[in-house]
This record gives sequence, structure tokens and C-alpha cells, in this order.
Amino acid sequence: MELTDFKAAIDPYKVIFFDAFGVLKTYNALIPGIENTFAYLKDTGKEFYVLTNDASRSPRQLADSYHRLGLYDIEPETIVSSGMLARDYLQTKVKNGVVAYLGTKNSAHYLETAGLTAQSISDLSLDNIDDVSALVFMDDEGFEWGTDLNKTVNLLRKKTIPVIVANTDRTYPMGLKTVAIAIGAVAKMVEDIVGKQFMRFGKPDAQMFIFACQQIQKYRGVDRSEILMVGDTLTTDILGGNKFGLDTALVLTGNTRIEDVDMRINSTGIIPTYVCESAVVK
Amino acid sequence: MELTDFKAAIDPYKVIFFDAFGVLKTYNALIPGIENTFAYLKDTGKEFYVLTNDASRSPRQLADSYHRLGLYDIEPETIVSSGMLARDYLQTKVKNGVVAYLGTKNSAHYLETAGLTAQSISDLSLDNIDDVSALVFMDDEGFEWGTDLNKTVNLLRKKTIPVIVANTDRTYPMGLKTVAIAIGAVAKMVEDIVGKQFMRFGKPDAQMFIFACQQIQKYRGVDRSEILMVGDTLTTDILGGNKFGLDTALVLTGNTRIEDVDMRINSTGIIPTYVCESAVVK
Amino acid sequence: MELTDFKAAIDPYKVIFFDAFGVLKTYNALIPGIENTFAYLKDTGKEFYVLTNDASRSPRQLADSYHRLGLYDIEPETIVSSGMLARDYLQTKVKNGVVAYLGTKNSAHYLETAGLTAQSISDLSLDNIDDVSALVFMDDEGFEWGTDLNKTVNLLRKKTIPVIVANTDRTYPMGLKTVAIAIGAVAKMVEDIVGKQFMRFGKPDAQMFIFACQQIQKYRGVDRSEILMVGDTLTTDILGGNKFGLDTALVLTGNTRIEDVDMRINSTGIIPTYVCESAVVK
Amino acid sequence: MELTDFKAAIDPYKVIFFDAFGVLKTYNALIPGIENTFAYLKDTGKEFYVLTNDASRSPRQLADSYHRLGLYDIEPETIVSSGMLARDYLQTKVKNGVVAYLGTKNSAHYLETAGLTAQSISDLSLDNIDDVSALVFMDDEGFEWGTDLNKTVNLLRKKTIPVIVANTDRTYPMGLKTVAIAIGAVAKMVEDIVGKQFMRFGKPDAQMFIFACQQIQKYRGVDRSEILMVGDTLTTDILGGNKFGLDTALVLTGNTRIEDVDMRINSTGIIPTYVCESAVVK
Repeated sequence: MELTDFKAAIDPYKVIFFDAFGVLKTYNALIPGIENTFAYLKDTGKEFYVLTNDASRSPRQLADSYHRLGLYDIEPETIVSSGMLARDYLQTKVKNGVVAYLGTKNSAHYLETAGLTAQSISDLSLDNIDDVSALVFMDDEGFEWGTDLNKTVNLLRKKTIPVIVANTDRTYPMGLKTVAIAIGAVAKMVEDIVGKQFMRFGKPDAQMFIFACQQIQKYRGVDRSEILMVGDTLTTDILGGNKFGLDTALVLTGNTRIEDVDMRINSTGIIPTYVCESAVVK
Repeated sequence: MELTDFKAAIDPYKVIFFDAFGVLKTYNALIPGIENTFAYLKDTGKEFYVLTNDASRSPRQLADSYHRLGLYDIEPETIVSSGMLARDYLQTKVKNGVVAYLGTKNSAHYLETAGLTAQSISDLSLDNIDDVSALVFMDDEGFEWGTDLNKTVNLLRKKTIPVIVANTDRTYPMGLKTVAIAIGAVAKMVEDIVGKQFMRFGKPDAQMFIFACQQIQKYRGVDRSEILMVGDTLTTDILGGNKFGLDTALVLTGNTRIEDVDMRINSTGIIPTYVCESAVVK
Repeated sequence: MELTDFKAAIDPYKVIFFDAFGVLKTYNALIPGIENTFAYLKDTGKEFYVLTNDASRSPRQLADSYHRLGLYDIEPETIVSSGMLARDYLQTKVKNGVVAYLGTKNSAHYLETAGLTAQSISDLSLDNIDDVSALVFMDDEGFEWGTDLNKTVNLLRKKTIPVIVANTDRTYPMGLKTVAIAIGAVAKMVEDIVGKQFMRFGKPDAQMFIFACQQIQKYRGVDRSEILMVGDTLTTDILGGNKFGLDTALVLTGNTRIEDVDMRINSTGIIPTYVCESAVVK
Repeated sequence: MELTDFKAAIDPYKVIFFDAFGVLKTYNALIPGIENTFAYLKDTGKEFYVLTNDASRSPRQLADSYHRLGLYDIEPETIVSSGMLARDYLQTKVKNGVVAYLGTKNSAHYLETAGLTAQSISDLSLDNIDDVSALVFMDDEGFEWGTDLNKTVNLLRKKTIPVIVANTDRTYPMGLKTVAIAIGAVAKMVEDIVGKQFMRFGKPDAQMFIFACQQIQKYRGVDRSEILMVGDTLTTDILGGNKFGLDTALVLTGNTRIEDVDMRINSTGIIPTYVCESAVVK
């Protein structure tokens, strides 16, 4: 596909949705020049949101991580994380009891702000599960894989409860060339073992985009045709955006490299509206 | 699980979403007494919608099929079909060209009312595909399986276009004890063969429920906690309703039999809010 | 990977196993020069077998198809087809009753020579299935897809019988750039719908290689290290050969093209012992 | 299905293949009375082998574990473990270099007796992988899941090597009502993440049965019709035995309970020749 200048790509839209990783930042730094993009959004009065399959930290902590890197435009209110969807589900459907979770103490934020009692799978005893009303896969850290995944399997064999997966990704980047297994892949293994059906929240699922649309302030009620989804991954950002009826821009600073882009589009059949070198306005 | 009287189950809600098959009708007749339910809904001022994974006919034709059976309360405006979601997608994202489809001439309704040129896969020549801008799996009838599925596979190998599946079901009932292969299963076979990613519309996907919520008139803006989803299938009606944050009622007049209900809930991990003998108000 | 001259590749081995399609012939012609290879095998006293996932015709008919193209070295005794494995299974395990099959009348050869009564799915009535003792997917032709696949699904819902798939492929080439859906893909769709577990015969399964080893005459009892498997497909020929402990040669005249070979090996992790331009001895 | 007395079931056969777990022993004890079966086999001159998807220990160590429980008839020569198949593959196909493995030090036995240098994934550094020529999933213990599974994923992203899974099971029993995740499930997660194709050894794969047949001494060359496979699991023992052409006996002392047996047979379509209460000769 032909490359489109990012400024030209975003100009027709009122609201921009950004994926975080591979679009705004790499594993330990901002994409060089990305601050220009946010200055341009401000100047032109466009509204933006960051849609991230990340339930490891609260929106406040996620925003802080950008501030520490020198990008001050991202505030907690502009972040839509898959953890927020999990919280929304739990608040609506699981009104009491103890919610067991796999993840860091930080990820428990989403459960506690839903008014629920959160208990790390590490602290759970299988002899005392009467009060457990749901299980949530939040993050790949904060528990002991060997012991606690076995405990998770046995919990789900003993008790029929809703299971929520707050991050649908299979891996995430750890360094320039290494990845780590994300909780989405671990949840899939457990789901196959116990033969039950888990509920997944995060891109490419429509609920992530609905939720983001509900946050829109200045352009409340904007038509979907005036929103652009910007991402680096065809199977989550672009597929999800397309299916929800948004225009989409694929950027080449993350999972998809310039030499592979045509092959990837052809082999998956997922077609972005634009392909741009990066999300940087020059 | 304990059985709840259907009247008691629906009383707390303002809006009721019904699945069609196995809830309102069987393969060739209404569920006996179902007209009482609609009389009760009218009396109590509740609003209702029928959510169906059926893209074989227009809402008008679907409504007529109830009228012919003697149920006059179901009007085209109260029907939300997966074909409507496919139309919505095509209208937003595929603005021109020819949309090839697998399905009956009736199913082409959804494409033509989107202002698109629809062409049955049967009439398509692989030598003339320059104008084909999308492919839609609508229904399992209206084409020649052997010849036309091979043509479909070769079309998708030659050209990268979005592929839409307007019915996610694998089978549908044909008689008391026989089923037919639904287009959802056929689409899955083609997807596996060509290795591309298709876009599916229909329950349990959130978009079906969003779309239904957007149709609500009298109780526009109603909170999700005031909507009840009624269905006979755990993996579509109940999973989809649960995930979208609705309360759910499983009825035992279709895919789920009373002797299996506990086993099915335990083995899938999909838990309805209520289990009712049927959707009939007595 | 580096290319190896085919003559150099086969020289160390006593027995050569060949895949048929993409190695010996293309869709309607022999690979140019392939007759030299068979002359060379004869001169050097090497034994060979053709291992093919093809149950559409008897070994006699398969051999005739080479003779018609001008290659006279392939005799019925040198052919090992997945149909022969299906016959072997049926002979051992299904001793009586009627075996229903999907496939051409030619494919029924494998059932009839097993001493069984074969009945095409087209001729089967669902009202008369008491004698049906097994179902075999042989070939993609010889039945009416729409009607007869629905009949197949309902047969398997009504009666618990062993189901055999005598061809594991998903597609086969029809012309230079078009493919047809193979019965293996159709069987997978039916298997997913009915939720039962079918038995598959054909490469990469070990049984195909065991069966071929049992046919070896001159070098009876040869060690596996003295057999070379030659094929054009990583996921069937090469994976199967590797797993069975054979050395393997990938040739580039069929499914794998020279420009993709490194990418394919890296992306699948399936590593042939040799990569050769073709199976032609020059 | 009707229950058959185990003595009557085995009488027509010369060689008996037994699964271990759920057939000969439970998690910490012998099946009561199983020693009678082995006395009867001795009296009647029948030969037997134990076929087990267990690569955690050598045949010597596995035999010792029976001796400690009081069953002295099982000797190392009568055990066929999936670890032996992995060793056989490595010996034939991977002739040099370092074989990285996930598993206990005991499981490395199979690699070292193949004349290979085994290195636990725990001891491997990603900076020094030039000599690594294969990776083997042996057992779920002996490594740190979080750290070492991430290391495994990155190893397979950096280097294209054959990957062997020496245990195809998903779980194994830990106590009366709890299970542990088996290495087969972990390997499947890694396979999905890296998108490569692993080689699996163990039931229901034909190679397990070929290997067992090759061990037969007294009745060397016995026809498959004179061998009976006895197991407690339809999807491994019975499916594998059936497909290989053996008669099969399902026993109800392990994974399959008497109240579920008909439902399980019908729902999987896997049909044993006999169903017996246990493998105990009374």
C-alpha cells in the first residue's frame, strides 16, 4: 500500500483513538517526535483517547508513566484500558463476594474501585472458596506461575463462576528484540484445560470501542465516520476499528514493519484505511 | 439451578430482548401460549426486541413469518437481525464496488438497501473481479455448494477484500430432530482454508446488543440493568447478554433441555441470571 | 537454506519416498525431466514408493494416470495412498455392516476390496441407518455438497459410529493458479459441527510411513536412516518424514516457491534435511 | 454399553497393552487387586507392556515406583514411555549440539542416553544459543514457569530448531480431586505464541503403538488383532488403539466414570471394543 503522511491522514477526523505500545512509545522510550503530534491535536482542537489492552495499572499510573518520559498531554481521563471494561462488567454483573485475580497489586485497583473484595490467587486457599464469585486474569506478574496456575485450574474445576480476561494479548515487548508472555495467552491455556468459556475484554472486541466512544467529551455524539483509530497491529487495532466502523491508520513503528506490511495485509485480509510511517506529525 | 416463573423473571425489567428460534417459535410453529407473553408486555408497558442471527430475509419478511403463524405483535421495527449489522458495516466501510454474497436473493436485501451493488457468487466470474470490493456470507441457500465454495476460495486467494459473516451459527433446526449446516460453519471452513480473518456479526458479539439498544424507543437511554435478554442457547444468547452487562434468562424450549441444564452451565461456565421453563407468561 | 543437487541428495539412500503432486507432476503434466530420475533410480538399484494423500482412485487407476502422461515406471505396487490406510483400518476394525462414504464411485474401490458393503451418502436414507457401521470421507466429488453434507451431519447425530477421513489435505491444485477444496477441509467442518473425533489417515501421520515401510521389497528391513522422503509441502511431507525419523528433501516445484523457502522454514519451524530445486536428476 | 468381565475381555488376546495411570494405579496407590491381573497374565503366558505418556523419569525409575507400591511384575523392559519416543527421534534426527529441555533432571535421562548434551532451560543463556540444536518439553517440573517459559518463547523466536513434546497430556491427577497442568498444555501455549509446529510423541499417536509393538518378545510378529489396549481415557488410549487397528478395553477406574461412559462415547464418537469395571482379574 501507498504511505500516507500522518498529518494528512488525521486531518479529516475530529477524534483520534491511539493504541499505546508501538504507536506512542516503545519498550522504554517515547516514539521520537510524538510530542509534536499532541501539540498539533491541541492546536487543531481534535480530541484523543489512548486505547490499551493493559490492565496492569490504573489510568493514573499509566498516565504517570508517560509524564515520566516527558509526554504531559496524556491524562488519566484520556486513557481507556481493558481493565476499565473488566471493572465495568464486574460492577454490573458481580455484585458481591470475593473476586480472585491473577495480577499485580496495582491491577487490583480495577476490582477495588468497583467496590469488590479482591483477593490475589496467591493468597487464596482452595479449602475456602465459598465466597469466591468471579475470577479475573489481569496481568502476568504478581503470582507464582507454577503453583498459582495449578490452583486456578482446580478452582475452576471445583466452582462454576464467571471468568474474565482483562487483556487479550498473547505477548508484549520486553526489550528491543525480546517479548514476554502476556496474561491473554496464559488465560487461553487455562480455558482450554478446563473447557469453559471465558469473557475477554480488550481490542479487537467492540466493547473497547463503545467504551471509548462513551468517554468522548467535546465531540459527544460524533459520528463514527469522524473517528480515526491509529495502531501498529492489524489483528487488534485495525481489525477492531474496522469492524466497529471506524477508519483506521496502521503505523510502522511497532509490530508491523515496512518490509512486511503488504504481505501482512494480504495474508490476513485486514485492510487499514491508511498506512503511515509513524504517528508523528512533522 | 432453580426454575423461576417467567412472569416473575421479567417483572423487574423495562425492556426485554428475545432470541427467536427455540424461544418464540420452533421449526414450524409458535411456542404454545407465547402470544400471552406479548399481551402481558403490552399491558405492562414493557418494550421488546427480537435479536436473531438470521440474515436470510429482511425484517419485513421475518415479521411476516410470525404473522402467518398468528403472532401479530412482532413488527419489522422490533426485529434486530445480524443482516442489519452486516448492512451497517458495509454502509460505513465499503462505499462502492460490487459486493459478492453467498445467500438467497432475499438476503441480498441487506446489501441493496445499503446502496450497494450485490452479486450472487453464483453469477460471479473469476475473470471479472476488479470491481468486487467485499464478500458477505449471508445464508446457506441460494448457491451451489460444490462449485460456488470453490469459487469463493479462489476469489479470496486472488483478491484481498474484507469478508463479512452475517450469521455466526453453526447449525439451525430443520425439523424436530434434524438440523442443517448454517452459513457460519461454512464461512469458518473457508476462513481456515484461506487463512484470512473474517468479520463476524451476530450474537454473542457485543455489536448485536449495541445495535439493539440503539433501536430502543420508549425507554431510550435505559440503563443496561433494566434490560433482560431471553434465550435458549448458553453460548450465544446468554454469553453475549452477560458480557454486555445484561441480566439473562435461559428458557428450556430450544437448544437446552431441562435434564441437561445444570451440566451445561457447569461445563461451559456460562451462568444465566434466571432459568425458566419457557418464555410463556401463564 | 543452501540448495543441494537432487542427485547428490538421493545418492546416500537405498529407498526414496516421493510425494506425487508438485514433485512428480503438476496439475496436468509431468515435471519436465522427471523420467530421468526414474531411469537413474533403476540404474542405481534404488527402490522407490509414491506416498499420496489421494483416496479418489485405486492404485491401478493412479498408476494409469502416470502411464498416460508417459511415465511408465510407476506401477500400482509402488503407490501408497491414504485410501489404502483407510481400507486397512476398516478391514481390521469394521468387520460388517454398510460403510457409508463421501466420494466418487472410484473411491469406493478401497471399501469394496476390504470386503465391505459400500454405500454412497447420496444413496443413503436417514430412515434406514441400522446397518451403517462406519462413515468414510474419501473424496470431494461424487456427492451433492448441500444436501449430502446435511445428511452426513444428521447421520452422525443419530448414530455413534467410527468416522474415517482418508485424505487430510485442505485444498488441491486445479489449474495453474486455482485450487479446489479437498475432502479433508470438509471433514473438519463436519467434525467441528458434530463435536466428535474423526480418525485421519494420510501424511503427516506416522501410519502412512509405517505402511510404506511395510511395502518395501528389495531392501526389506532397511533402517530408517537409509530412506529419504521427497516432498513439496513442509506441513505434510517434511513434518511427517522428520517425525518418523527419515531424512527429508524439500523440492521447489510445487507448494513451496524458492523466494519463500527460508521464510516458510523459519515461520513453521519444520526443517528439511535438504532443499532441492526439483526432484529431477540431470 | 454393556460391561464385560475383564478376564473375559483379555482371554482372546496374546499381548496386552496397559495405560498406567487410572488403570494400574491411582495418584498414590495401586488399583486394589491389580496384582491378581499380573499373576493371571503370567499363568496364561500372555505378554504385556505399559504405555505411558510420562517422560518425567526413566523406565527404571518408573518400574521402581511400582515396586515400592508392592507390584513387582513391572520391569523397565515392559515400559514404553513417551520419553523413549523423544529419545528415538533425537537419536535419529539430531546428531549433535546441545538439546535444551524443560523438565526435571530425571527427565534428562532420555536425552543423555541418546548421547546428547542436555541443558535445562533454567541454565540456558539467550546470549549463548549457537550450539542449541533442539528443544524438548519433557515434564512440568524442574524449571521456573514465569522466567523460563519467557526464555523458551524468546529462544524459539531467535532460532529455528526442531521442538519435541514428550508428553501430550493436558493435566495429570495430583490427588483425589485435584489435577496439575501437564507439560503438554504448556507446550501448546508456547506453540500458539510462536506460531511454529511442534512434534508430539505419546498416545494417541501411532508411533507410541509402533514402538510398543517393536518391544514385543515372546510373540514377536504377532498380528495386531491379537493385541488388546486397556486404558481409562477415550481420547488417548482408546482413540490411539482403535486407529492403530487394535481392539480396546475402556476401564472405569480413572478418567471415565461409570455414570458418564455412555454419554462420553456418544459425544466423542470414540468406541471401545469392551467396557470393563476395572483391569482387575477376579
